[in-house]
Amino acid sequence: MVDIAKPASDGPSGAEESGHDLIYGIDDVPPVAEGVALGLQHYLTMFGSTVAIPLILSGPLGISDDPEKLGWLIGTMFFVSGITTLLQTTLGNRLPIVQGGTFSFLTPAIAICGMASLKSAGFEVKMQTVQGAIIIGALAEIVIGYTGLVGRLRRFIGPITIAPTIALIGLALFPFGAPEAGKHWGIGGLTILLIILFSQVLRRRHRVFELFPVLLGIIGAWGVAAILTAAGVFEPGHPAYTSLDKLDAAPWVRVPYPLQWGMPQFEVAAIVGMLAGYAASMVESIGDYYACARMSGAPIPDGKTINKGIGMEGVGCLVAGVFGTGNGTTSYSENIGAIGLTRVGSRRVVQYGAALMIVLGAVAKFGALFTTIPQPIVGGMYCALFGVIAAVGLSNLQFVDLNSPRNLFILGFAFFMGLSLPAYVTANPLDLGESLGWLAGILNTLGSTGMAVGAVIAVVLDNVIPGTDAERGLTEWQKAG
Amino acid sequence: MVDIAKPASDGPSGAEESGHDLIYGIDDVPPVAEGVALGLQHYLTMFGSTVAIPLILSGPLGISDDPEKLGWLIGTMFFVSGITTLLQTTLGNRLPIVQGGTFSFLTPAIAICGMASLKSAGFEVKMQTVQGAIIIGALAEIVIGYTGLVGRLRRFIGPITIAPTIALIGLALFPFGAPEAGKHWGIGGLTILLIILFSQVLRRRHRVFELFPVLLGIIGAWGVAAILTAAGVFEPGHPAYTSLDKLDAAPWVRVPYPLQWGMPQFEVAAIVGMLAGYAASMVESIGDYYACARMSGAPIPDGKTINKGIGMEGVGCLVAGVFGTGNGTTSYSENIGAIGLTRVGSRRVVQYGAALMIVLGAVAKFGALFTTIPQPIVGGMYCALFGVIAAVGLSNLQFVDLNSPRNLFILGFAFFMGLSLPAYVTANPLDLGESLGWLAGILNTLGSTGMAVGAVIAVVLDNVIPGTDAERGLTEWQKAG
Repeated sequence: MVDIAKPASDGPSGAEESGHDLIYGIDDVPPVAEGVALGLQHYLTMFGSTVAIPLILSGPLGISDDPEKLGWLIGTMFFVSGITTLLQTTLGNRLPIVQGGTFSFLTPAIAICGMASLKSAGFEVKMQTVQGAIIIGALAEIVIGYTGLVGRLRRFIGPITIAPTIALIGLALFPFGAPEAGKHWGIGGLTILLIILFSQVLRRRHRVFELFPVLLGIIGAWGVAAILTAAGVFEPGHPAYTSLDKLDAAPWVRVPYPLQWGMPQFEVAAIVGMLAGYAASMVESIGDYYACARMSGAPIPDGKTINKGIGMEGVGCLVAGVFGTGNGTTSYSENIGAIGLTRVGSRRVVQYGAALMIVLGAVAKFGALFTTIPQPIVGGMYCALFGVIAAVGLSNLQFVDLNSPRNLFILGFAFFMGLSLPAYVTANPLDLGESLGWLAGILNTLGSTGMAVGAVIAVVLDNVIPGTDAERGLTEWQKAG
Repeated sequence: MVDIAKPASDGPSGAEESGHDLIYGIDDVPPVAEGVALGLQHYLTMFGSTVAIPLILSGPLGISDDPEKLGWLIGTMFFVSGITTLLQTTLGNRLPIVQGGTFSFLTPAIAICGMASLKSAGFEVKMQTVQGAIIIGALAEIVIGYTGLVGRLRRFIGPITIAPTIALIGLALFPFGAPEAGKHWGIGGLTILLIILFSQVLRRRHRVFELFPVLLGIIGAWGVAAILTAAGVFEPGHPAYTSLDKLDAAPWVRVPYPLQWGMPQFEVAAIVGMLAGYAASMVESIGDYYACARMSGAPIPDGKTINKGIGMEGVGCLVAGVFGTGNGTTSYSENIGAIGLTRVGSRRVVQYGAALMIVLGAVAKFGALFTTIPQPIVGGMYCALFGVIAAVGLSNLQFVDLNSPRNLFILGFAFFMGLSLPAYVTANPLDLGESLGWLAGILNTLGSTGMAVGAVIAVVLDNVIPGTDAERGLTEWQKAG
């Protein structure tokens, strides 16, 4: 733990010595009340995506006009996220990473709902088919993780690969930042301003700002939105309108349970499509482990940590598939951004948050409460957090020789193609015909995932183009670990 | 000049010593024949945009069905680019930067052509109104440059501002990379592969690969396209089809001359809209100066260099406005990418290229020849070059404390918003009504220019959020300069 009286601006030498500048490191245990509040803050950074995924899926699944089922689906997402986070932080890689739904499963899930054989099927059948694909994929991930296949690939991965990979996780989310916050710039911009004010300026004034910049930023902007709604400035339908009316309809308690939508169904086409989502998710997770370890003061993940982490993510996906979230679980980049912003990297804090998630997933009214936070506030938070993810990736460049034309080419090419290729693939998805549709599905999902593109390019070129260990940053990097 | 027998992978210490790893530094003068060939290579990296700008403008100007006028417009672009490059490299900032058309003037020019008063006007009137706006804007830029207004702002600019600004110049071009190369991945991918092979692997085998990786990559892929076209594999209309038939229609010589489209017309609305383009262009140019100086081994640009550069860019725009390119001139990021890739940063080489441009701009057949290079090859070259621009920006991070949460927040937020805000503004342009239309125009142009957004955010936060000079990288950066 760092003395809060210590000025943050202690220059490169001071920071290099400790390598980190955290309030709570990975093994630190804050007092319970503070820990729960901090855990809630971690949780708040992810609720946007946790709610967004079921909302996006509701259309393809055919429940966009069924608020009850949609509410249950949201509750299930929270509930499973809590369970899988507890599993990962106790029996998995033990890094302070929140586990939650993943955008990389969205494309295959939507594709499954649109399959010719399910065109006229109801919600349950579609959901069961998605669940079946997720369950089989989960078994594959468990095998890949626990056999150590993933960890053995680690020696090909250096800071030149990790930097663009992690940075692209954050940068590729750019369509979700300003466009969301911009639904009302007054409220979205206020959220951004408050988070900057609390996390960067006022944190030296009072500890509360140092610990809860994101939470306070959201509450502040939400309060203003509530006042303006009460004053009649924001009317229903306005993007910054906030009202607790939705809560009346929701029951107090509904505990999600396994197979709640019926027995999963297994279809080959669905399963193969979903495997592409798994591949992207695994690459992303490994990047997250490095980022999270860097941010939380843990050692650089070794093969064993990665194997355990990926294996346990497979277990988490199995849980998600059996409960039926319509999605899997993966490591949450948002929460790594939160570590960077709040400088709280304590595993215990994440576990408190996970326990809260399980409770909140079962309290339908509480889940509904969070859905009343206006979109511009969620977007404002995204703007502040996603950039920090990108910067965490960039911080790996301190180990790399940035005057080497070789390194500059690899880094730049990986970055550029990580943005450029998805723009191409999204507009021109590969079509290999009926018989090779599965391969097209895999290539399209990977090609439209910026961080997967960046990772593949960087890892191939960094291992193929000649370069010394010192130039590639491997020497310094291992030392820092 | 660096011995070519020297291994490139000499590690951080070796590279740090010289700070650069160039074949020809800014003041080096290669033998004439080699210099002209290298100048042509610089020129080739920019011909894509130089041709693209008139092609895009041809629709709004109403000459898309008039190949003769379009050909003249392309020739004028080349011709003016040569003149302004010679002016900049002799009497301006004297950096080895190619001057050429700018994408930041495209939006205002298209807006001018669409103005209610010009709806039914012919090509000449539209062009004259665009020219009038460019001429007045040029006078403003000359004043801003030569009065030293720009240079005085320099003390607010450190590596934390420069890094995202330059990186975003490259990254923001992502829609032009893979989507262009992907018009035919066989030929586009071959171009990328050849450039990587020549610039990163074979350059140690033979000097020709070290000097001309881009040119050889283009020629190689073009040759394959020509063979496949001759063999009937690529038919007319195929994106990789290449044929010299277009050349027959073009005359041998046509020298562009001032006021060739008639007298410029001055309209207030047009002028104000164009000023936004100038603001974006100036910010971009300052970023380019830093990038170019870093790449070419010149000292970090001081206030005087920046003033002279911007002032001379104003003069260049005046020339462009008087000749009538429908565009202005600005520093060319592509050419900085070429310096990074080829490690040729010689001013003389750029001047040879400029002289060639003047000649080629007057030889209509030669200009037409370049328009026969298939789009996928141009796109492949973009993929290799734009990433290097991004990496050049990132290389400024070596001076910054990458363990400081303050720095990570500023960098990440600037990067993220530099991609995210343009996505918002492009989809939701600001509308302030008739009377404030000029302000909306300025804000829309700036807001949709990623590097302007990143620059403004980084420069404000880096100067507002407390941080030491060492932490901000100012100490190390000034030393390196």
